[in-house]
This record gives sequence, structure tokens and C-alpha cells, in this order.
Amino acid sequence: MIPNPARQAALAARYGAAVPPAGPWNTTIAGLLDHRSVRGYRPDPLPEGVLETLVAAAQSAATSSNLQTWSVVTVEDPAARAVLAEVAGDQKHILECPLFLVFLADVSRNERLGLAEGRPLEGLPYLETFLVAAIDAALAAQNAVVAAESLGLATVYIGALRNDPVRVAEVLGLPPGVAGVFGLCVGHAKDGAEGEVKPRLPQSVVLHRGRYDAGAEAAARAAYDAEMRAFSQRNEMADDTWTRRVIARIGTIRALRGRDRLAAALQALGFPLN
Amino acid sequence: MIPNPARQAALAARYGAAVPPAGPWNTTIAGLLDHRSVRGYRPDPLPEGVLETLVAAAQSAATSSNLQTWSVVTVEDPAARAVLAEVAGDQKHILECPLFLVFLADVSRNERLGLAEGRPLEGLPYLETFLVAAIDAALAAQNAVVAAESLGLATVYIGALRNDPVRVAEVLGLPPGVAGVFGLCVGHAKDGAEGEVKPRLPQSVVLHRGRYDAGAEAAARAAYDAEMRAFSQRNEMADDTWTRRVIARIGTIRALRGRDRLAAALQALGFPLN
Repeated sequence: MIPNPARQAALAARYGAAVPPAGPWNTTIAGLLDHRSVRGYRPDPLPEGVLETLVAAAQSAATSSNLQTWSVVTVEDPAARAVLAEVAGDQKHILECPLFLVFLADVSRNERLGLAEGRPLEGLPYLETFLVAAIDAALAAQNAVVAAESLGLATVYIGALRNDPVRVAEVLGLPPGVAGVFGLCVGHAKDGAEGEVKPRLPQSVVLHRGRYDAGAEAAARAAYDAEMRAFSQRNEMADDTWTRRVIARIGTIRALRGRDRLAAALQALGFPLN
Repeated sequence: MIPNPARQAALAARYGAAVPPAGPWNTTIAGLLDHRSVRGYRPDPLPEGVLETLVAAAQSAATSSNLQTWSVVTVEDPAARAVLAEVAGDQKHILECPLFLVFLADVSRNERLGLAEGRPLEGLPYLETFLVAAIDAALAAQNAVVAAESLGLATVYIGALRNDPVRVAEVLGLPPGVAGVFGLCVGHAKDGAEGEVKPRLPQSVVLHRGRYDAGAEAAARAAYDAEMRAFSQRNEMADDTWTRRVIARIGTIRALRGRDRLAAALQALGFPLN
């Protein structure tokens, strides 16, 4: 491999000391490696056509059997944004960003198709069909994120909409068989809001060859805890390890902030999850 | 907007007659729009470092609260590939492609962390935690796909591994709390295997503004059925509409090919889905 300083810097930012072997490199890969979630936005509107370009990118992602069981809603109304920000635990960037999208698992379109053709779809009420819809929404959304970042825009996913999917459905007028899976802020990062690339676990822990093997895990976690402590000191004036963050986030049912009731909420929205 | 023939051609390939307003354009966006799933591979191995680059791209995707509850396994052993191809309904490209990945929803790593710290994680047994893992696996995989395609490689997702997640777990030696969400073939497309870009539903059906609105749907579906009929005539010597394909794929429980039992299979693999 030809030494490439930009590639080495990108890998070091993502992995700290645990840099994986260098591979091929181009501007698209550089953009992917440079991702960071941004939680502060300038009010500047997006250029004309950006929304349609992001949706075209999203729709270009693979979709299981071409079922296309996802949709997306833009939210402009400040009152609606305020409700969604509240559902998400008062995340102010939901109010700030010029474009706020909610990605939807949507089996209602295919349900309407079946009803119109006199062929009700027996496969709809299953967990599998909801999961396909959620995964396809995620593949689509990630393409939108990659497209947005390639244009110099910033993004952050808002999984906390799942704190209260029923309220999200009310605000967006969703019919049965449609549920918000997550939100996405898109816009121009405020000065200083972009932050550093966040380190991830070493590849030795995430990538398994042939069979699952957790053998390298304990040592890798200690090293990653040290990386994340240094990251949190530099960026958040905190002194936190990954281990502590994981325990804080899913150690207790209370920390799920209502998402322990997700199954019941989805059932109320027309996903029996059989 | 400056007229851009490449952009117009890409949008026309993706949308047929229902071309959305043109927006900004660059090589990354061009790559996203040009995606197609490829089901025929040459045996040529991938260049050195490609796997690590795809994993670095995947790990650079957002992950909910940085929990990183996904992993990925490469499958090289021909006997293991044969089992996975059989689970997936004899998809021969699983045997052909030089790199076959299985993306995993993996809460076991965080479970081990909690146990090692004497803090069992109460949030693990919930549907929400499985869903986060599946969504994060999807975001990661899509980054890997974008990276692969930017290198001129072809890909196809294999959702049909969910026909039998328990058998997949046996082949890959997965511990409790880990399940294969989908597979991914990566490699060089065989001559003629790349095919045309597949048209998608018009944006008017998928993109909603402010509130969900299915008003444009019936007319858009008729137009899309005509696009898909022409596509299937050109590419598959078939005469199929989208409407007929959707009904064939999820019209009956039998068409789910075992995935109607997904909830039970996940529960057997250590995901209570509370």
C-alpha cells in the first residue's frame, strides 16, 4: 500500500491506537470515515433541491424484495417540532435544524395495495415485516446521511422519538401500520458543534472470522475505555469510559425512558409483531 | 440549477418518468444513485485491505448512544457457505462471492461488560434493545455497501438468512444475545450480472410534508406499475408489475418461508423481545 497521510489520520481518529491495516481509499470512503453526529445547527436554510437529492439517495438504497415499506416526513411546523423535541427529552437541535426528517416503518402502503386488489396481505402482521420496514428505513436514512455529509452538511439521528411512538404518530397524522423509527436533523453545523470524530471499538472486537470469537474482548475493552476517557476529557470536559456510558444507558429500565414499552406502542400503531 | 446530463440520466434511471427536481450533485451522490443489487460474482479475490476498509466505514456510521451492539462475521469455509446458501433458499451467489459477511445484532458484548463489572444490564431483554442492534447493524452495513460500490465492487443483501436464524447461529458459533440480521455478498460482478438500476416509487408517495398523506398514491402506483412492467420486460424477460410482486412476496404466510416464526427464533437466541 502507498502511504497516504489523510487515510492514516482518518483511521487514527476512528480507532486511536488500534489502527487496522490500511486498505484502498477515495473521497467517498474519506467522507464515511469522517462522520460525526452534530447537535448544534445554524438557522440557514438548505439549498434548493437538497431534500429531493437526499430522498433520491435514500430510495436508491437496497430494499427487501423491493417492498419499499418505509416513508419519510419532513417536519416544519414549530409546534410539531416542539412536541417531537419534548418526546426526545428536550433535544434543542430538533428545533434548530433547517430540515427535520422522521423515517417511518410503513406497511400501510402495501396494505392499501392489497386491499385495492382484493388480496389482503397475510404477511403483514409479523415481526419480520416490521423488522424489514425498520431495516429498510435505516438503509435509506444512512444513504441520506452519506449524501448530506458529502455536501458538507451535518446530521444527527434521533432515536429518542421511540420514547413515545404513539405521540409521534399523532403529530405526523400517521395511519395504522406506520410508525416513526427515528428522526434525523440535517443542516449546517454551528461553529464548534462539529467536534472530533468519535473513536470506536477496535476491529478485533467487532469483526469475527469464520466463527464468533470474544477472546480478544477484555483487553480491547480496557484499551477502548482509555481512548474514550481521553476523548471525553478533550471534548466534553468529562472523565467517562465506554464501560460507564454503556451501564448508564442500558443498566436500568428507567434509563430506557419509556422504550421498555415499545412493543405495546407498536402494537397500538397497528404492528401486531406476531 | 445548471443542467447536468449525468445527474438527469441517474434520476431518470431511478424514477422513470417521475423525475424529481434536480438538486446538488457530486461523485458520492452519483455512486449512491447508481446502486443495484448484483446476484452473480467472479471468483477473483478482493484486494488486500478491502475488508478492513469496509469494516472501518461500517464502524464510522452512527450507533445509538455509542452502544455498538452489532458485529460482523466473514464466512470463508465452503461447508458453512453451503448451509447459509441453503437457509437462504439456494442463492448461488452466496457460494460464488469472494467475501460473504453476516451482520449480527449483538447485545452479548455489552452483556459481558455488565457481568464483568457486577452490573447486569436491565435494559437488554427489551424489543427496543434488539431493534437498536438491528438498526445499527443496518446503518453500518449500508456504509460498507457504499464504500464497496465506491471501489467498483458489487453487493447484495441476503435477508433470507432470517428464514432460519437458529441454524445461522449454529454455523457461526453465536453465543446467546447474538443473531444474524442479514448477509451481504461483496465481489466483482460477473459480465452481465450488474443489470439496470431498478426504478423506485415516485417521491410523491414516499416523501410526506408535515403530515402523512396517501392522496397521490393510487395514480402513482399505476404509473410505477408501468415502469416496473417495462423494467421486468427489459431485464428479466418477465411481465410483472410492482403490485403483483408485492402480493407474491407477502400475500401469504407461506411466502414468508419460515420468517413468520422469527419472534420465536430470536427468543430462542436470547432476545426475549419484552
